[in-house]
Amino acid sequence: METKKPRYATFKDYLKENYHGPYMATDIVIRHEEDHKKGIVLIERKYPPFGLALPGGMAENIPFYQNAVKEAKEETGLEAMIDNKDKPLCVLSELDQDPREFIATVVYTAKGTGYLKPCKDEDAKSAGIYTEDELRGLLEKDIWAFPHHKKILKIYLEQKIN
Amino acid sequence: METKKPRYATFKDYLKENYHGPYMATDIVIRHEEDHKKGIVLIERKYPPFGLALPGGMAENIPFYQNAVKEAKEETGLEAMIDNKDKPLCVLSELDQDPREFIATVVYTAKGTGYLKPCKDEDAKSAGIYTEDELRGLLEKDIWAFPHHKKILKIYLEQKIN
Repeated sequence: METKKPRYATFKDYLKENYHGPYMATDIVIRHEEDHKKGIVLIERKYPPFGLALPGGMAENIPFYQNAVKEAKEETGLEAMIDNKDKPLCVLSELDQDPREFIATVVYTAKGTGYLKPCKDEDAKSAGIYTEDELRGLLEKDIWAFPHHKKILKIYLEQKIN
Repeated sequence: METKKPRYATFKDYLKENYHGPYMATDIVIRHEEDHKKGIVLIERKYPPFGLALPGGMAENIPFYQNAVKEAKEETGLEAMIDNKDKPLCVLSELDQDPREFIATVVYTAKGTGYLKPCKDEDAKSAGIYTEDELRGLLEKDIWAFPHHKKILKIYLEQKIN
């Protein structure tokens, strides 16, 4: 094999100089039933950008599917049983989808267990269940914290796992 | 709405302090036919870690699916027609999958057009087509630069798009 030298002393050096994002987030579409209502869980954000959103947040130093479960727990109180940890619903990485930075998201689907109860120190002011009909109505409105969450929910509604 | 202040002045400040990976890569499974041989394209890496690999590389400041197409072009000479830019084949983000850093990968499938001809300044020493039978044989061997590429190819072979 050729032994031509790599262009940086270590890969950490390479990353330090060359990695400028995308920074990663995870989002999660949780199917949940509680008090005779069945649907998808959305939160209302406590911090900017305000509005309705899927539970989710910036990636930490854990695999993405674990990050999605952790954020779900913090923001909704639910245990999220991920459908497939290797195959997310979608990955969105357009440059302008988050107003703050170049942030891409890996989106999982899951079944929720437990009871809705957002942790009071987290991003969610409240969390609620929305039926598919309600979701379709909300998708027409300008009440979303992140416009690409509308795209995620459209992808979900088109190809949902029951 | 509550107007409790965010905990950092800007989101960039938050990221600077709190984002420590995962750093992102993309990989691509290219179906290609050339000189009466039809199969999947693999490269032999010119730099460490040495071995066989899927075409791919670190994410740059472009959407992941564009990154996958760019790396495919550089490392194989092929134009890659991505099957679905929103729905990758898989996303792998285990902490130890890359020996160098916490690097997660978004993996796309694509159809190749053009002719195999790796760019001489890129990571690939050579690129070749491997039939499914050949792939199954190679997956038994310890000749891979990244062990998780074996997992990707197993996922592909189980659920391949024809």
